[in-house]
Amino acid sequence: MVNIAAVKSNLMIYLTRRERFCSAHRMFREDWSDEENFRVYGKCSNPNWHGHNYILWVTVKGDQSPDNGFVININILKEIILRNVISKLDHKNINLEVDFMKGKVATTENLAIAIWNKLKQPVEKEGATLHCIKIEETENNSIEYYG
Amino acid sequence: MVNIAAVKSNLMIYLTRRERFCSAHRMFREDWSDEENFRVYGKCSNPNWHGHNYILWVTVKGDQSPDNGFVININILKEIILRNVISKLDHKNINLEVDFMKGKVATTENLAIAIWNKLKQPVEKEGATLHCIKIEETENNSIEYYG
Amino acid sequence: MVNIAAVKSNLMIYLTRRERFCSAHRMFREDWSDEENFRVYGKCSNPNWHGHNYILWVTVKGDQSPDNGFVININILKEIILRNVISKLDHKNINLEVDFMKGKVATTENLAIAIWNKLKQPVEKEGATLHCIKIEETENNSIEYYG
Amino acid sequence: MVNIAAVKSNLMIYLTRRERFCSAHRMFREDWSDEENFRVYGKCSNPNWHGHNYILWVTVKGDQSPDNGFVININILKEIILRNVISKLDHKNINLEVDFMKGKVATTENLAIAIWNKLKQPVEKEGATLHCIKIEETENNSIEYYG
Amino acid sequence: MVNIAAVKSNLMIYLTRRERFCSAHRMFREDWSDEENFRVYGKCSNPNWHGHNYILWVTVKGDQSPDNGFVININILKEIILRNVISKLDHKNINLEVDFMKGKVATTENLAIAIWNKLKQPVEKEGATLHCIKIEETENNSIEYYG
Amino acid sequence: MVNIAAVKSNLMIYLTRRERFCSAHRMFREDWSDEENFRVYGKCSNPNWHGHNYILWVTVKGDQSPDNGFVININILKEIILRNVISKLDHKNINLEVDFMKGKVATTENLAIAIWNKLKQPVEKEGATLHCIKIEETENNSIEYYG
Repeated sequence: MVNIAAVKSNLMIYLTRRERFCSAHRMFREDWSDEENFRVYGKCSNPNWHGHNYILWVTVKGDQSPDNGFVININILKEIILRNVISKLDHKNINLEVDFMKGKVATTENLAIAIWNKLKQPVEKEGATLHCIKIEETENNSIEYYG
Repeated sequence: MVNIAAVKSNLMIYLTRRERFCSAHRMFREDWSDEENFRVYGKCSNPNWHGHNYILWVTVKGDQSPDNGFVININILKEIILRNVISKLDHKNINLEVDFMKGKVATTENLAIAIWNKLKQPVEKEGATLHCIKIEETENNSIEYYG
Repeated sequence: MVNIAAVKSNLMIYLTRRERFCSAHRMFREDWSDEENFRVYGKCSNPNWHGHNYILWVTVKGDQSPDNGFVININILKEIILRNVISKLDHKNINLEVDFMKGKVATTENLAIAIWNKLKQPVEKEGATLHCIKIEETENNSIEYYG
Repeated sequence: MVNIAAVKSNLMIYLTRRERFCSAHRMFREDWSDEENFRVYGKCSNPNWHGHNYILWVTVKGDQSPDNGFVININILKEIILRNVISKLDHKNINLEVDFMKGKVATTENLAIAIWNKLKQPVEKEGATLHCIKIEETENNSIEYYG
Repeated sequence: MVNIAAVKSNLMIYLTRRERFCSAHRMFREDWSDEENFRVYGKCSNPNWHGHNYILWVTVKGDQSPDNGFVININILKEIILRNVISKLDHKNINLEVDFMKGKVATTENLAIAIWNKLKQPVEKEGATLHCIKIEETENNSIEYYG
Repeated sequence: MVNIAAVKSNLMIYLTRRERFCSAHRMFREDWSDEENFRVYGKCSNPNWHGHNYILWVTVKGDQSPDNGFVININILKEIILRNVISKLDHKNINLEVDFMKGKVATTENLAIAIWNKLKQPVEKEGATLHCIKIEETENNSIEYYG
């Protein structure tokens, strides 16, 4: 008997890829004074910036390809994430240098939504569906967004 | 262009805070003999207690505040968890000293439900919704409760 | 007042057990040449095999037993996983030695589906419902399957 | 050419085995009042106990066996640790039930020294040398002892 | 028999405390051009900063106090680290805001040496000896310094 | 004042780089029967192979360069490890495909010694000294070798 890639169809599979980026940021609204920003955002509003080792989990879902058994080729997913997200965030200042965060407060909430918007179409082009963006800012704080 | 805290509304965001507590406990029913308790709960029923480094993840969900971009201010969430839960469990005996566990078997299942009940209202008061209580008892065993 | 195991009924609880297995595998279709397999599966198609420390999380859900407060006795769940899954995968070659993977490409996707099928009935026999099979192949790649 | 177990001799190798135990304890001196104990040991002196998921790393060192290439057979080391240490600590009260901790304050420091003393001879009987006992009490606090 | 804090004297014990700080930094020499800095420090020289979740392990060694059994009271050690190091680094820009890093390239090597110099005396004042400063910059890169 | 890379000289710094590789292996001596191999190496001698996600930590030590403040440029160290070690082990069969393991039993002990021998000279060429090779085979078992 020859082996085949996927035994049954119509089975929803969830695949998660982890990537990391190290960035500087500051949480603040430009139309607020430093004092107002500090009152709301605390030490995270430090005008001289601070930074994090962000951990990003991208979960896509879909049916298995009858040809190769994949929901999505993980090397292609990795490449999509690196090109659209990591290359623009890693070792950058999120407030000053990341085009898709311009005009937004650099919260992890806004980051998750912006990354969702960057990845939705490229993932769909590969025949899968974007399911969840999870970002861990510190080992105690994380955000999930499901679109 | 001035930056704003939240770009779109009606986007459900999930925020998770991790906290930890170290407690003693014993799993047993008072109306059972030690032998019966041992048969059901095994070494976890040891009459002289044992303990764990419990890890707690509290997930809340909601829309972003148009003002500050938060689902909930994470420092307020942290304070809610510390005051209502951690301060009552950390370095305590769950069976003997924790009011919200009185009369219940000290399983992680019951702990998760009790913590849910302690956090539901304070989280709602802040405009967010409690989504999940996850407790890891050991690196191999964990419980989730969604209300 | 006597303590009781579970205070309220009809509360859905999710319980997760983590287990591990170390196996060799190769991703390839028998009806493809080594070149075709390499083009699709890359270094994972290496004819001399490679291997992983797989991490498996089995999540079951259900109501608490009014008797002992458990969704499922975790020692019974552990024993079910060891007998049906781990004992057949650990320190084995997934392609050559695992009966429930015969004739399938040894992807993590197919592994998750096969493990689901092995655990569904034994978990139900214990009065709980299988909810999720999650497998981490490397710290960056994981699969979830919900049936 | 036949393969051989160890290529060169007189090479010092360090092998580490990780084991875990979940115990209750209390830090206090019997000849001090509860107030004095609280002043020195803080919440760790809680008279109703608390507990931890302790992680233990046992490091042994030695030359490789020319026969099998091992410093020590890791299954034998595991069995030595389980029989002499884990079986006496896991799901126990360190103050009340652990013979080798009787009469000592249940600090992680004293635990590390006591475990060293329990393991030194059995490890030497197997031809290796005990090098280090490391115990992690919480993810932020750990102790090492080298004899 | 009364329990006593420490059973034997002259036993060297190593105690490690973990703390964390989130900071922005840039690796560069002021007397070099941006191009020269980029050639040596790569993306870590980004003029707009980047940042990390640094993890710090401070190891002290010493004999146990016959009174309380401690090498050092871990709450005092924690307070020493917070006051002298974490409060000056956390949510700060290492290049612009940290007095003990002024005039130095913000490498993890220099950070480890500077933290050693800040902690040596306060630790000795408590009767212990500073043994090692370990800093993890990312999960793949870390530095240790032993004085 | 211009900042300089390293403030003092003759300070020994230890730098550790983590890398990972996923390989198949089998522990056995060719001159022993399968039964003898099983008696000594247990399930690790499975003739159809098994595999691991090995984690490798390479620690080098040395003085800081007065020019750039590095013990060794971590990108150069990474490249040395990838070229000499990871590229030869990752997604390979350690027994059949790794030249520097030919004729040796595929224990983690022998792997650590062999990796030491592959890295010693390239690290010295960069002006640093190889200090330690640590390999984690599973989360419970690891080996260290210091030359």
